[in-house]
Amino acid sequence: MPQTEWQRRGFRTDLAMEAHELAGGEMERPLPGVHVDRRMEEGNTVIKIVVEDEAAGRALGKLPGHYLTIQTPDFQSQNRDRTEILSRLLAREIENFLARLALGPEDLCFVVVLGNWASTPDSVGPKVVRSILVTRHLWDFSPPEKRGGLRPVCAMAPGVLGLTGLETSEIVFAVVQRIRPRFVVAVDALAARNVERIGTTVQVSDTGIHPGSGLGNNRLGLTPGFLGVPVIAIGIPTVVYATTIVADALEKLGGGERSGLPDERLRRHLPPQFTELVVTPKEVDLLVDEVAKVVAAALNIALHPGVSAEEVFRYLQ
Amino acid sequence: MPQTEWQRRGFRTDLAMEAHELAGGEMERPLPGVHVDRRMEEGNTVIKIVVEDEAAGRALGKLPGHYLTIQTPDFQSQNRDRTEILSRLLAREIENFLARLALGPEDLCFVVVLGNWASTPDSVGPKVVRSILVTRHLWDFSPPEKRGGLRPVCAMAPGVLGLTGLETSEIVFAVVQRIRPRFVVAVDALAARNVERIGTTVQVSDTGIHPGSGLGNNRLGLTPGFLGVPVIAIGIPTVVYATTIVADALEKLGGGERSGLPDERLRRHLPPQFTELVVTPKEVDLLVDEVAKVVAAALNIALHPGVSAEEVFRYLQ
Amino acid sequence: MPQTEWQRRGFRTDLAMEAHELAGGEMERPLPGVHVDRRMEEGNTVIKIVVEDEAAGRALGKLPGHYLTIQTPDFQSQNRDRTEILSRLLAREIENFLARLALGPEDLCFVVVLGNWASTPDSVGPKVVRSILVTRHLWDFSPPEKRGGLRPVCAMAPGVLGLTGLETSEIVFAVVQRIRPRFVVAVDALAARNVERIGTTVQVSDTGIHPGSGLGNNRLGLTPGFLGVPVIAIGIPTVVYATTIVADALEKLGGGERSGLPDERLRRHLPPQFTELVVTPKEVDLLVDEVAKVVAAALNIALHPGVSAEEVFRYLQ
Amino acid sequence: MPQTEWQRRGFRTDLAMEAHELAGGEMERPLPGVHVDRRMEEGNTVIKIVVEDEAAGRALGKLPGHYLTIQTPDFQSQNRDRTEILSRLLAREIENFLARLALGPEDLCFVVVLGNWASTPDSVGPKVVRSILVTRHLWDFSPPEKRGGLRPVCAMAPGVLGLTGLETSEIVFAVVQRIRPRFVVAVDALAARNVERIGTTVQVSDTGIHPGSGLGNNRLGLTPGFLGVPVIAIGIPTVVYATTIVADALEKLGGGERSGLPDERLRRHLPPQFTELVVTPKEVDLLVDEVAKVVAAALNIALHPGVSAEEVFRYLQ
Repeated sequence: MPQTEWQRRGFRTDLAMEAHELAGGEMERPLPGVHVDRRMEEGNTVIKIVVEDEAAGRALGKLPGHYLTIQTPDFQSQNRDRTEILSRLLAREIENFLARLALGPEDLCFVVVLGNWASTPDSVGPKVVRSILVTRHLWDFSPPEKRGGLRPVCAMAPGVLGLTGLETSEIVFAVVQRIRPRFVVAVDALAARNVERIGTTVQVSDTGIHPGSGLGNNRLGLTPGFLGVPVIAIGIPTVVYATTIVADALEKLGGGERSGLPDERLRRHLPPQFTELVVTPKEVDLLVDEVAKVVAAALNIALHPGVSAEEVFRYLQ
Repeated sequence: MPQTEWQRRGFRTDLAMEAHELAGGEMERPLPGVHVDRRMEEGNTVIKIVVEDEAAGRALGKLPGHYLTIQTPDFQSQNRDRTEILSRLLAREIENFLARLALGPEDLCFVVVLGNWASTPDSVGPKVVRSILVTRHLWDFSPPEKRGGLRPVCAMAPGVLGLTGLETSEIVFAVVQRIRPRFVVAVDALAARNVERIGTTVQVSDTGIHPGSGLGNNRLGLTPGFLGVPVIAIGIPTVVYATTIVADALEKLGGGERSGLPDERLRRHLPPQFTELVVTPKEVDLLVDEVAKVVAAALNIALHPGVSAEEVFRYLQ
Repeated sequence: MPQTEWQRRGFRTDLAMEAHELAGGEMERPLPGVHVDRRMEEGNTVIKIVVEDEAAGRALGKLPGHYLTIQTPDFQSQNRDRTEILSRLLAREIENFLARLALGPEDLCFVVVLGNWASTPDSVGPKVVRSILVTRHLWDFSPPEKRGGLRPVCAMAPGVLGLTGLETSEIVFAVVQRIRPRFVVAVDALAARNVERIGTTVQVSDTGIHPGSGLGNNRLGLTPGFLGVPVIAIGIPTVVYATTIVADALEKLGGGERSGLPDERLRRHLPPQFTELVVTPKEVDLLVDEVAKVVAAALNIALHPGVSAEEVFRYLQ
Repeated sequence: MPQTEWQRRGFRTDLAMEAHELAGGEMERPLPGVHVDRRMEEGNTVIKIVVEDEAAGRALGKLPGHYLTIQTPDFQSQNRDRTEILSRLLAREIENFLARLALGPEDLCFVVVLGNWASTPDSVGPKVVRSILVTRHLWDFSPPEKRGGLRPVCAMAPGVLGLTGLETSEIVFAVVQRIRPRFVVAVDALAARNVERIGTTVQVSDTGIHPGSGLGNNRLGLTPGFLGVPVIAIGIPTVVYATTIVADALEKLGGGERSGLPDERLRRHLPPQFTELVVTPKEVDLLVDEVAKVVAAALNIALHPGVSAEEVFRYLQ
């Protein structure tokens, strides 16, 4: 995919809603070929973006498909009520994706979490997987009347290329070929433009995870085309790239006009390793823990139709 | 495999050398069909056991094949010299297995570590994998003259059934089918009879990992027959089962005669969950860290013929 | 304190209720000078033991004072309801100790947690302290009408002698002299006789923590006499010593009669390092996490009269 | 201390060498009242800065005293040779501070590490303390001829105000009053101007740790004046503040002239929480581990005159 105008200006984001804004779109006046819908729900903002064709995709740097973002206004953690409200809201939106993709309540789901334990911003996937209610190993041994509305679910944290020597997509493809899930849920850490997204925002999409997106920079993607099954991607912003912070500050200091933006000067004047620097709030460890809980709870509610939200929260670690 | 006499008496061990002893064998007078060799090397004891036929295998509760145990006499950690001596010794013995199995220096190796992070005694495999020098992702892009004696190596920590819903052997089989390694190295935590083995002992064998052995109780095994390639298993004792401690104490208190041993009474009088209790030294966390370093260093030395031990230790985390 | 009969027989326990039982006492027929009361509450067993005089203390190996134990019947974790019920129950019992010691709602409390992070069974104190609602640093700056029923609370994890070179009691005494709390709450990991106590039981007492009790083997104690203020000790069983497991098994296998018990033979036949071995369930990591949450929640409820249990659970990590 | 010019421009640094540069000083032409010396040693840069009087201190935002910085050129970790070279070099410089302060080889040292485990950039102190060779608890029991050149050393990680309700300086003062060390070594995480300092740089100084410096923002300091004994502060850069990154980028993009710098606009246009954002390399977890090892090894060599560097590295975790 060719670089977008906003990427050339030094911005990096994996969130469709930010990409739309950076490409000049507005809530009330979206770009051509983009459908945007925003609503408030229990204090949270829910933004749906549909990228309807290839041209719109090129402008946003996003494949055509559905993108859903939930964000909570307050930058605080450890409030159980907020955790529950967000989890239920996210669960309903994941259920909408399941329905749109015509996935039935007993279809085998394979949850794949990307990232690695050893780096805090990249640890959100491995943290989610610990709390996923996996059932596939019990399901086949249980008589149908005893399954109690549980879906067969299995899960895996394949690790990162530098520590395994294996492309994530290679491992996932091999296991998908073997166990034949009806669909894949992929959980990954994302980069955002705005540091306030960290610990407060989740994106759901049906276009998969693409080479170069997420923090891990995979060379192959986890896409529906490659894996041969639908992929619901859950993305969780945990970092902002330093180039983005600088580009943002420059834009604000420059009065907001975009024309003369110093992309070339950024490139020439900033040291090369600058592009790998990430910005986080000091308390990123806590924020990542909190949002991982929300995603795990939402997946448990959405994937297992017979399990109530109350039960999920009761057993949530 | 039918239960052995010593298993009925309440003992559990994954070490061939202890199994031989429990079955009544001695160093100087091994059981029929068993070949035993013990030597001292730089203060460490190296014991080779060859189980030569099926009958001997049944007596020991072990498949026919080669078993090699290295143990260090002192129960102490954090001495770099000891780490290095043990690592070199273990590396040489792994190289002997490679030679016996006719594995060449550029044959692709797939390292599979069993166990899970969240339980200290079962975390040894995941700790080893962090320090394995993986190269497969770089190897194919490097011209042969630049490979510098590195073997293509990849690695994976597939997780445990209860957290993934996937049998370890299913995942490993699928990935083996896909990436076609020439051989597999499997690293697993073991149960020993004697608590002094924890942090001091490593077993290498060529018979794979079997259903019910190790701490994870897999239902399928990682065996050469199942995977279709040679398997070198590296086993690391990290626990002793409580039943074994009691059986051992009873034997010692009873004067050592084995005939009237209270296996039935053990079964009847001890609470059922007793069989899942494990005994560890209080400092098990440190001991597991230490032995994981030894195994990782030895694998790096043995697998990469062009990497010297000095270089391995220089970069050892 | 001289060794008790049950200690000579190989048993070790820090729980007064187990010590009473081992000394031959029964619920219905307690030993002389011991008052015992047991009740059930919401499925949990609450046992109060009052050791009324020195003679009774010698029989039990416990100082005269009040000992309260709460235990939950099921050996399971991660059920939020159970966490809440246990926390509220424990909070009420801690409030009873506060009332008996005539401690007012604005009296400064100093929470001291013993143990260390690096050893799972000994990490329960450090895990509790992370979730304690500390307020002392804010309290002095807040006008009385804004304090909202919060007590001034501070907390500390002084570490273990081997890692600091400082006796815990030295540090605590120095800080007590400086900040002048009205009372101390000390949280420590305990040894039990019965492995089913791990993750299911909490003991509260007013006699402090004594040299040689707990897992850390302090040479000085954290006692009311030494510190000059009341000490409420919260003890959490996380291990059973291997000698206790063996003594227990022997007693059961021997038909239960106590007379001819093999204490001398235990001593002679078991290897010396045996006395340092601990027995835990394999899932001890999870059980310790769970019980640490219960204790932290109970302390937050009991110490801050203006904070409701609902608020505590809402913000519980 | 009044804000310096460079602080007003949005820069924050705890390193004297960066402060000197930001204040307009150069290696060859230092500011008045500042003495600077730079040398290369085994590939590392060693910079000594002496702030000779109050006026110079105001210009730099640093108290008069000695500041020593060691930095290694390469931004890589896990090379044991580099670890050893840096450790020995740092040890020699710490020994110079000991000599200048007339501290003898048997003078009691109290090592205080600031920061907390739960936040990666702030965890460097707690990581150092795990590997410090503490001896005070053994020293008094050993006859002088058996002490083997060990100094009595004790250590403590007092935690952070938000988790304890206690000022670090309160705790340290209380313990210092009680155990009467001859001097204190304080280890703390620092903010730098340049992200390349992370994992590569250590600062040693004799002016203590001051209110508002370091990451923890203590309200009181750990200074020689307050504690009544000499304080050797070891500072380890682990973050760069986002404001500093932006100020730096602006300066570079603006052609380097300082006059018209947008400090007021920075303040007005950037969101308020921006000032708490920190920038780190993605691999900060590994870099912090590595530099913590260097500091622990150097302290063990420098503090214990009878322990050789070889022995320290042999036992280094």
